[in-house]
Amino acid sequence: MPTTPKSEIDGRILILQRGLIERGLDAAMIVQHVDLYYLAGTLQTCHLLVPASGAPRLLVRKVIERARSDSALADIQPLTSMRKLPDHLKELCGPRPWRIGMELDVLPVKTFQFYLKTLGAESKIEDIASTILTQRQIKSAWELEQIRLSGTINDGLYAAMSDVLRPGMSTVALQGSLETAARELGNLGVSRFRGMNMECSPGVVVSGPGGAAPSHSQFPIGGRGIHPAMPHGADLDPIVPGIPIIFDFLTNATGYHNDQTRMAVVGAMPDDAQQIFDSMQTVLREVESILQPGSIPVDIYEAALAVAAAHGLGDAFMGPPGYGAGFLGHSIGLEVNEMPVLAPKFEAPLCPGHVFAIEPKYTHPDYGVIGLENTYAITETGFKRLSAAPEDVLVVDAP
Amino acid sequence: MPTTPKSEIDGRILILQRGLIERGLDAAMIVQHVDLYYLAGTLQTCHLLVPASGAPRLLVRKVIERARSDSALADIQPLTSMRKLPDHLKELCGPRPWRIGMELDVLPVKTFQFYLKTLGAESKIEDIASTILTQRQIKSAWELEQIRLSGTINDGLYAAMSDVLRPGMSTVALQGSLETAARELGNLGVSRFRGMNMECSPGVVVSGPGGAAPSHSQFPIGGRGIHPAMPHGADLDPIVPGIPIIFDFLTNATGYHNDQTRMAVVGAMPDDAQQIFDSMQTVLREVESILQPGSIPVDIYEAALAVAAAHGLGDAFMGPPGYGAGFLGHSIGLEVNEMPVLAPKFEAPLCPGHVFAIEPKYTHPDYGVIGLENTYAITETGFKRLSAAPEDVLVVDAP
Repeated sequence: MPTTPKSEIDGRILILQRGLIERGLDAAMIVQHVDLYYLAGTLQTCHLLVPASGAPRLLVRKVIERARSDSALADIQPLTSMRKLPDHLKELCGPRPWRIGMELDVLPVKTFQFYLKTLGAESKIEDIASTILTQRQIKSAWELEQIRLSGTINDGLYAAMSDVLRPGMSTVALQGSLETAARELGNLGVSRFRGMNMECSPGVVVSGPGGAAPSHSQFPIGGRGIHPAMPHGADLDPIVPGIPIIFDFLTNATGYHNDQTRMAVVGAMPDDAQQIFDSMQTVLREVESILQPGSIPVDIYEAALAVAAAHGLGDAFMGPPGYGAGFLGHSIGLEVNEMPVLAPKFEAPLCPGHVFAIEPKYTHPDYGVIGLENTYAITETGFKRLSAAPEDVLVVDAP
Repeated sequence: MPTTPKSEIDGRILILQRGLIERGLDAAMIVQHVDLYYLAGTLQTCHLLVPASGAPRLLVRKVIERARSDSALADIQPLTSMRKLPDHLKELCGPRPWRIGMELDVLPVKTFQFYLKTLGAESKIEDIASTILTQRQIKSAWELEQIRLSGTINDGLYAAMSDVLRPGMSTVALQGSLETAARELGNLGVSRFRGMNMECSPGVVVSGPGGAAPSHSQFPIGGRGIHPAMPHGADLDPIVPGIPIIFDFLTNATGYHNDQTRMAVVGAMPDDAQQIFDSMQTVLREVESILQPGSIPVDIYEAALAVAAAHGLGDAFMGPPGYGAGFLGHSIGLEVNEMPVLAPKFEAPLCPGHVFAIEPKYTHPDYGVIGLENTYAITETGFKRLSAAPEDVLVVDAP
C-alpha cells in the first residue's frame, strides 16, 4: 500500500498536466527528489515523465521493487540507460522536437546541458518549477495531517525539555539531546530546503549573547555556532540560570515538516525577558486575528511590525539591527523554505490550504533571541494551529 | 586570527588564478558555500571575485564583521545590491565584456540566467567547477590535519559504542545516541555533498535484514529506513545478539570530513559473519599494498574486486546483486563525494595529497552489511591512515 494515497498522486498529476497544457509543453521531466516524492510518492533515484495528457511514467534508476511499493503510479519501469529517455518520450508524446518542462530553479547548468543534448538539440527545456511550487502551496487535508503528525514530535520535544535540560550543559549538548529525543519520537532527522547553499540542522538551540549573533544566511535566529565552518546555532557556552533558552525545531515524520519554536529557562525568567516574550505572543495573537483567506502577506508582515514597534521592540524584530531576516513567516511543507512568505512584495491573498510557520522573534544582546513560532494551516474561515505544545516558557527548577 | 591560515588561502587563490589565465577567463565569481569556504575561509553569504591577476575581493551580503574575522583575505566589502556586481568587476578586470568562470556543476539554470543578465548580455559565463574541484583534490598538510581532527571524533565514537549499545534498542536509537556523542566530541553535525538531491545523515547504523536493503541513491550501505520519505539507513527493528551492527560515520570538526566504518555485535560474532569481515579486512590490506602515488584508481578497484571474488564474495561486494555502488572508495574533504573515485573509468594516477575513504563492504541478506572503512591520505611514499580507531569488531557483552 503506497504511503502517499493514489487519490493524492492522481490529483497532483492532473493539476500539473493542466499547467503543461496552459504552457503548451509536451511533458514535464521531474528529477528533483522532493518534487519526485510529491508527484510519485517515492525517493528512489528516478525520472518522472508526465505527458500533457495520458498516464505518467516513472523511470527508476535504483530499486524498482521499492519504487513499485512506494508509489501509486501504474506505469513504473527501470531506466537502464539515460540514452533511453528519448525513446520513452517518443512513446508518451510522439515524435521530436519536444518542449519539456524541468525544474530550472534547482537544476544545475551542466545537468541541464546534458539533458538538452540527450533530448536532441531541436528540443527545448523550459522552466516548470513555478508551476509545481505554486500547486504545492495548497495542501490537501491529507497533507495537513502529515504536517500535524510532524507536529506531534514538536509537542514531544516540549514535553521532553524538562528531562534533558540541565544548567551548565552547553546549548550544543542540549540540541544534541533534543535531536536524539526527536528521533525517538519518529523524526526522520532530515530537513529539506530548496536551493543551493541552503542547510540547517533539525534543531537550533541558543541562549545568551552567543544566540544574539546575526544569521550568516536567511534565518531569524543566527547564533554563534562552534566554528566558522558551521557559523550558525548552538555554541559551547554553559547554560546559565535566569538566561532564556530558545529552541526552534524542524520536525519531519513523513516528509512534511512542522516548525515550532518555544522557550525554556532554568530558574526564573527575568522580568524584562518575560515582557519581551509577552510582546511577541501579542504579535502572534494580532497576526492570528487577520490570518484568514483573502489577507495579504505583506499586510500581515506590516501589522506584526507595527505591534512590535508599539511595544518598543521594532529595532531588533526578526533579527539584530541591520541584519533582520525581512520576513515574519514562511510557507512550509515538503520543503522548509516554501512560498509565499509573509514579507514585503508578497501581495497575493492567502487561500485555504496555505501553511505558514509564523515566528515573531526579537534579538536581545544579553539574552539571545526571544519569541515563539507556530505552524498554521489557512482554512475556509480562518486558521488551524498545527502546533499543539503550550506556548508558555518552560521553567525548569535550578538544582 | 582566521581559522584557515593566510598561507593556505593565498596558495589556493594563486592556483585558481593560474587556471583562469590558462582558460583565458577575466575572473571567477564564486558563490557555492563550500567553494567560498575553501577560497575565502568564511561561510557568510557572499560572492568572491577572483580576477585572473591582482587581489581577490570578497563581497559580503550578510555579517561583514564575521567575514572579516573568518577570512584572511584583505579586500572585504559589503555587497549592498546585486546590481553593484558589474561595478566591482569593472574595478578588478577593466571594462566589459567579461568572460567569467562560475560553478556550473551546481549553479541552477535560473540563477545562471540572473547573473548573465546582471553582468550584461555581451559577457559570458563559463564553467570553472572542474578547475576548482581539481585543485581541491590535492590536500595540503594543514588540510590533512583537519581531516585527522575530524577522525578523532570517529575514534571517540568507536570508544563510546560500548557505553551506548544495548540489545533491544533499535538502530535508529543507536544512531541517535552516536550522533549526540559525536556532537559532544566536537562534531558540527553537518555532512556536505556536492550536487542536487544528495543528502545523508551524519551516521548510518544498520543491522540484520533491514540493513541489506539496497541504496536508493549511490551509497554502498542502503538500509530500509523508517519511511519512504527517507528510504535509507537505520530502522526500528530491535538489535539482536549475534547479529552484526555496522556503523558508518561522517564526522566534521572544522569543515573537513572524516569517513570511517566499524562493526559491533552484542554477544558473539557468528563464524560466517566473522569470516566475511576478515575477508573485507584482507581486501583493505591488499588495497593498502598498492595505495601509493602512480597507482591507477580503476586498478585498485579491480584488485579489490578480485580479492573479494577469490574469497567467494564477488556477488554482493559493494552492494546487493544488481545494486552495487560501483566504486570501492571516494575522495573526501570539504565535501563527501569528491573526485577521483576508485572505480571503473578513473585512469589518472594517484598523487600525494589525494585523500580517499576506502570501504570494502559485503551485503548479506541476514546480517545486513559487513565491512569496514578508513580514510587515507596518499603520501610521497605510500599512504597515511587518517582513521585511528582499531578495526576489530567491537564485542559488547549480552546482558
